[in-house]
Amino acid sequence: MAVTEAAADDIPQSAPVVDCAAYVAGQRAANLTIDQLRSAVSQPQQFVWLGLYDPDHALLRRVQAQLGLHDLAIEDAVHAHQRPKLELYENSLFVVLRTAQRVPGSQRVEFGETHLFVGENYIVTVRHGSLRSHINVRHRCESTPQLLMKGPGYVLYAIMDFVVDQFLPIVQQIEEEVQDLEEMIFGQPTEGDATARIYRLKRDLVALRRAVSPLVDVCNRLMRFDLPNIPEDTKPYFRDVYDHVLRVNESIDTQRELLSTALEAHLSVLSVAQNEHMKRITAWAAMIAVPTMIAGIYGMNFANMPELAWSYGYYVSLTVMALASLGLYIGFRRSGWL
Amino acid sequence: MAVTEAAADDIPQSAPVVDCAAYVAGQRAANLTIDQLRSAVSQPQQFVWLGLYDPDHALLRRVQAQLGLHDLAIEDAVHAHQRPKLELYENSLFVVLRTAQRVPGSQRVEFGETHLFVGENYIVTVRHGSLRSHINVRHRCESTPQLLMKGPGYVLYAIMDFVVDQFLPIVQQIEEEVQDLEEMIFGQPTEGDATARIYRLKRDLVALRRAVSPLVDVCNRLMRFDLPNIPEDTKPYFRDVYDHVLRVNESIDTQRELLSTALEAHLSVLSVAQNEHMKRITAWAAMIAVPTMIAGIYGMNFANMPELAWSYGYYVSLTVMALASLGLYIGFRRSGWL
Amino acid sequence: MAVTEAAADDIPQSAPVVDCAAYVAGQRAANLTIDQLRSAVSQPQQFVWLGLYDPDHALLRRVQAQLGLHDLAIEDAVHAHQRPKLELYENSLFVVLRTAQRVPGSQRVEFGETHLFVGENYIVTVRHGSLRSHINVRHRCESTPQLLMKGPGYVLYAIMDFVVDQFLPIVQQIEEEVQDLEEMIFGQPTEGDATARIYRLKRDLVALRRAVSPLVDVCNRLMRFDLPNIPEDTKPYFRDVYDHVLRVNESIDTQRELLSTALEAHLSVLSVAQNEHMKRITAWAAMIAVPTMIAGIYGMNFANMPELAWSYGYYVSLTVMALASLGLYIGFRRSGWL
Amino acid sequence: MAVTEAAADDIPQSAPVVDCAAYVAGQRAANLTIDQLRSAVSQPQQFVWLGLYDPDHALLRRVQAQLGLHDLAIEDAVHAHQRPKLELYENSLFVVLRTAQRVPGSQRVEFGETHLFVGENYIVTVRHGSLRSHINVRHRCESTPQLLMKGPGYVLYAIMDFVVDQFLPIVQQIEEEVQDLEEMIFGQPTEGDATARIYRLKRDLVALRRAVSPLVDVCNRLMRFDLPNIPEDTKPYFRDVYDHVLRVNESIDTQRELLSTALEAHLSVLSVAQNEHMKRITAWAAMIAVPTMIAGIYGMNFANMPELAWSYGYYVSLTVMALASLGLYIGFRRSGWL
Amino acid sequence: MAVTEAAADDIPQSAPVVDCAAYVAGQRAANLTIDQLRSAVSQPQQFVWLGLYDPDHALLRRVQAQLGLHDLAIEDAVHAHQRPKLELYENSLFVVLRTAQRVPGSQRVEFGETHLFVGENYIVTVRHGSLRSHINVRHRCESTPQLLMKGPGYVLYAIMDFVVDQFLPIVQQIEEEVQDLEEMIFGQPTEGDATARIYRLKRDLVALRRAVSPLVDVCNRLMRFDLPNIPEDTKPYFRDVYDHVLRVNESIDTQRELLSTALEAHLSVLSVAQNEHMKRITAWAAMIAVPTMIAGIYGMNFANMPELAWSYGYYVSLTVMALASLGLYIGFRRSGWL
Repeated sequence: MAVTEAAADDIPQSAPVVDCAAYVAGQRAANLTIDQLRSAVSQPQQFVWLGLYDPDHALLRRVQAQLGLHDLAIEDAVHAHQRPKLELYENSLFVVLRTAQRVPGSQRVEFGETHLFVGENYIVTVRHGSLRSHINVRHRCESTPQLLMKGPGYVLYAIMDFVVDQFLPIVQQIEEEVQDLEEMIFGQPTEGDATARIYRLKRDLVALRRAVSPLVDVCNRLMRFDLPNIPEDTKPYFRDVYDHVLRVNESIDTQRELLSTALEAHLSVLSVAQNEHMKRITAWAAMIAVPTMIAGIYGMNFANMPELAWSYGYYVSLTVMALASLGLYIGFRRSGWL
Repeated sequence: MAVTEAAADDIPQSAPVVDCAAYVAGQRAANLTIDQLRSAVSQPQQFVWLGLYDPDHALLRRVQAQLGLHDLAIEDAVHAHQRPKLELYENSLFVVLRTAQRVPGSQRVEFGETHLFVGENYIVTVRHGSLRSHINVRHRCESTPQLLMKGPGYVLYAIMDFVVDQFLPIVQQIEEEVQDLEEMIFGQPTEGDATARIYRLKRDLVALRRAVSPLVDVCNRLMRFDLPNIPEDTKPYFRDVYDHVLRVNESIDTQRELLSTALEAHLSVLSVAQNEHMKRITAWAAMIAVPTMIAGIYGMNFANMPELAWSYGYYVSLTVMALASLGLYIGFRRSGWL
Repeated sequence: MAVTEAAADDIPQSAPVVDCAAYVAGQRAANLTIDQLRSAVSQPQQFVWLGLYDPDHALLRRVQAQLGLHDLAIEDAVHAHQRPKLELYENSLFVVLRTAQRVPGSQRVEFGETHLFVGENYIVTVRHGSLRSHINVRHRCESTPQLLMKGPGYVLYAIMDFVVDQFLPIVQQIEEEVQDLEEMIFGQPTEGDATARIYRLKRDLVALRRAVSPLVDVCNRLMRFDLPNIPEDTKPYFRDVYDHVLRVNESIDTQRELLSTALEAHLSVLSVAQNEHMKRITAWAAMIAVPTMIAGIYGMNFANMPELAWSYGYYVSLTVMALASLGLYIGFRRSGWL
Repeated sequence: MAVTEAAADDIPQSAPVVDCAAYVAGQRAANLTIDQLRSAVSQPQQFVWLGLYDPDHALLRRVQAQLGLHDLAIEDAVHAHQRPKLELYENSLFVVLRTAQRVPGSQRVEFGETHLFVGENYIVTVRHGSLRSHINVRHRCESTPQLLMKGPGYVLYAIMDFVVDQFLPIVQQIEEEVQDLEEMIFGQPTEGDATARIYRLKRDLVALRRAVSPLVDVCNRLMRFDLPNIPEDTKPYFRDVYDHVLRVNESIDTQRELLSTALEAHLSVLSVAQNEHMKRITAWAAMIAVPTMIAGIYGMNFANMPELAWSYGYYVSLTVMALASLGLYIGFRRSGWL
Repeated sequence: MAVTEAAADDIPQSAPVVDCAAYVAGQRAANLTIDQLRSAVSQPQQFVWLGLYDPDHALLRRVQAQLGLHDLAIEDAVHAHQRPKLELYENSLFVVLRTAQRVPGSQRVEFGETHLFVGENYIVTVRHGSLRSHINVRHRCESTPQLLMKGPGYVLYAIMDFVVDQFLPIVQQIEEEVQDLEEMIFGQPTEGDATARIYRLKRDLVALRRAVSPLVDVCNRLMRFDLPNIPEDTKPYFRDVYDHVLRVNESIDTQRELLSTALEAHLSVLSVAQNEHMKRITAWAAMIAVPTMIAGIYGMNFANMPELAWSYGYYVSLTVMALASLGLYIGFRRSGWL
């Protein structure tokens, strides 16, 4: 099966608390433990970024107690298998993203989930079953303090950008496979599993679409409406993510339409090929049937069949057979049946 | 037929009045009879939860007289066969839900209906032809008085959540069947009833969609607009139901699209298989026809056919026949016809 | 042709003026002639209900002169062949409905039209080519004076309800025919006219949809907007009609989608059947061709063919032929070709 | 090709200035030349109606100079090949309509264009490549001065009504052709060009739709919004045109859907027919192959074949052959293959 | 592959800075270098038009430093591969257009990109991989100073008009190819690559649609909303571009629909052809099989076969064979199989 949830044993193990730090003016100010969160977020000019990986219920409850997260959001974060969405709980945001990755050395697309809690001066990221950690996002953010100082809203952007950019290579790979398919269908119509490949690509695209298309609405709200914790000057960045989402979406739709057409075209090509085979078969059948008929005639046992007595009757009859077959061959050639 | 209305005799009989109780501060305060309803709902700080199962017209009229329900809503509740909807009558809500269940030991999806009247301090639930009672919902609600004290609006949420969650396992089962179908279509193209299974799954999905998709609008109104009897702090709960409805809906649409593609792919696979058969048949036919033709030639009765007189003529001719067939066999093998 | 305009001679003749009466407080107060209309509608507390059947232009002009109807609405009422709609002319409403009926003893759906002029204290109903008169609607309205006293708006509801309810049995009959078709397609693939039946049902559904779907908008406006002559307390009734329209509409869409899938599935079933036939034919052809080849070999005239001289050669050859055929038969059986 | 732009030489030649007159109180007051236009439109209570046919650029420039038309509108009016639209230039309207006509004695639909400039007291109509002139519209308008006195807005209505009404007979003719096609497909499956006719009708419908559907929006704006030069009391007339446009549009969509279904149904019918042929062919082939096999057996040259010596062997063998064929014939008949 | 990104080596090399000039009152006032830009744009009554071709990052940074362009827009301009869009950055606009061209002497459509920065008194055009430079647009603008004096907004219009007009000939060429295809499909069903051509045209159309359809929204905003740097009196010009975009879009949609129908029709035509072939083949097979059977009968070795002894038996049998074949020929002719 090409599109699957990531199997647990494929994922490198890591601690549930990946990193937890306080940032002042875009610079890492202190490493924190879970129990220091409450006091950290009470300090103005400072925000906390907590990264979790597949946390259990107890850990999430501890974080909830420290930061006052909403019950329903915590429920969602535990269960995973959410659709991508943005929810507003009083003055905090809860964002669900679906991540996608090609498993190295296989054609499968695996999906994971990233949940984000964005408060006034904290951001909590919860990663489920995704192969690639956000640690690089954190490093990149830390290397541009002038941007990171915009606060949790900017971190939200950085992670959404990272997640959405993972879809681009997958979609491009599918585009290349569709091109391969085109050559397969129109070049060598006899290789029969084009159908299965078309079906599998379509199934992948449908799954990708479910992961990507709800982001159009999420980005729209982030760049247009007044949401808490999203500073005005980060909105152009979400417009950028929005653009990428639209491009991935358009590409998915384009490939789906092409695959539908390819499937129909494939049927048409098969039908042409079948027609061609039938003609060729028929032509050869005729070239065997006519000599057989002639031979049958001279196998009759009539007493009076003058040709039978001729010295060259046999050779003449063989020649007639050969000429009949040759005539048919030439005729079929001319009419394009051979 | 896979999707049917629940046959009456499959349902365990139960009394029309399943349970009727008054709740104060989320705790069951008193069991009531129908005729005590009017006085019970006149008391502030208290609300009544009446559960009915397949009530007759007379019983509904009695309830109507006690609670002042609207004529048209009562009509709907008697007749059943409504589409899911939310209607506002002055200061009470009337909600229609469709329930769905797999009949144990069969592949059929059976549909029932649940109607709810939600007033300021009462909720009446009317269940039609649904296998599973709401008694567990009541028990669960009673075990969390701090939530149940939110009043009838919370009970409405609890029942909607219960009903919508019934769809998830059905949809998952269909997803698994679609995966089975994929293997059936692309693995063993000769088993012919994939078509019928595709059709039946599609019919089930269309019926499920009619039950689920109107709930998008119902939930939307419950979580967004100011409706009477829906306290502000229960709205996030309806957002939760809304999320589930969207997930079921998306899954239904995904499976429908996959089934459409699967049906076309099936036709394509059949066409490929037919092509393959035709080639194989042709190859074998040629391997029989050529020796027959040769035999026909040596069955001719010409007086002068020198080969006939040769001592080894017969054996040579047999060898020629065998070699011709072998040559054809090798040729067809090479070109992939065998 | 299954869906036709009602042929004029199929309709029982009736007078152009079916009934014309004034109502006070929901009770029939007086029977009127056309020429008394103007004075009747000038009296407050009273409204007039005029029922016309296929009126000619002159009669409509007389009614127009009495009630002051708009020119364009009169034009529409004369010509019929309108699409369902609701139009507002100053302070009167003009409503066009399409009616549908199964012709008894045939499968044809026949369409008629009903036009309604709704003023402050009059309602004029104009029926074109519809088999069933509204006389029962009038009787039912007269039997509930407490409802009829709501005025012309209530009569409008009663007639719309009557018209929309005519669609339900037609749609249910089509649903049953689709179920028949399913059995026909998946049970006995050889009966060839499933295609024609699918096409005809689809054509009927498309025609029905054109009659029903514009009513969604009509009902919407009647139940939501402030239209003259529609009292506030009749709006819930139009919501009821709206519900029925949605149900008919949904059912039509469902059946259309099922028919599309059925048509594709039918093609797929035919393809499977063709494959099966081809295999069976091939198997039998092989069982004839192999003995023919063997017979051909022993019909050769070589001088030295030792088998020919054996006493039991003939019987052995017959046995070989029979065994070859039997072997083929068993082989084909095993591989599922027979 | 069925749908074409009108070839120039098919159109009866007429002068570029068809008619130019001033109207006072709905009555023709004076015939004007182009150069009198400016002074004519400066008089209140009077409006000018100028009709042009395929004017050249110079003529349009002269008209523009007199009436102060907008540059871009003039550009459009010269180039033709516009899509139907309504544009507002300061205080004048520019309307583009596409006209359609069946060429007498052919199946082709030809398209032309009519452009209208509507000012406060002038209307200019520019006709391109349309067979039927508006002269009848002018005559009809002049015969109802009480309507014509409403001014240029009414003339706009009269011409739109005229143009839209040209589509109705074309669409009805297509509806009839679709009915013909149905009989052709389901009655006589062997006539092969149903496909080409379906395709051609669909192409015509697509072209018609491009001409008609933008008018929905044009009419909507004319009947709903406050546009200059459209008196309030002509708006109901545009609602009438709107209704016709919707009917034509609906009919086009209906026929398109039916044609799509017809095309699929045709393929299905062909598949059934092919199945039937294959069965019939097979049956006859078997009835020839079995006697041939029997004859082959008795053509073998074994020394000891007792039947050969029987006096009636030959006749018995012929009888056996005939009986075998007859048995096959009866068997195939019974199983419906013949 | 028919639709490709322009290969870099196909493009005539030109300098990154194509032209850079200041305009006063629509007249070219001075040629500038990049480093003079800042002072030039600070002068009122004057605007600067800078044309770049495939600039590198450093050059764009220099321009950004001079004109204060937004970081994200610069990022987009460097990377290209944007979808067409209009973005508002504080008081400047950033517009992305996709250009398309037929490569001369090939059927490929190549896409390029043009990015535009529109400020209060500057416009920067950045061309990527497009074959045709905007130099002609500049010349045309300079020749109409009364229009060019409207400022950067007018230049934006001129370039959009130029870009959109490039799509028209491509779409027209595709329309012609679709007409060719129609003749190919319905005239000569045996040429098998109609399918591949349909697929390729559809792929081109899908790519074109992605380039054109986002412009509907871009033009809409330019002609409707108050955007900075777009003078009110240039809005009618954008309406003109909007019209062209709609026409191209409609044409693309029409051709896509026709191609879908053509693909289905092609399959249907192939099926008819296959039926016809099968009939013809069968007829000829029967005309060979019947004489073969007769010959087989008279090849039997029964001792008592009176016909064998007749002097004219042989000739009679040949005549019977010929008559049988002739009879079959006439019969098949009559029933339309030959």
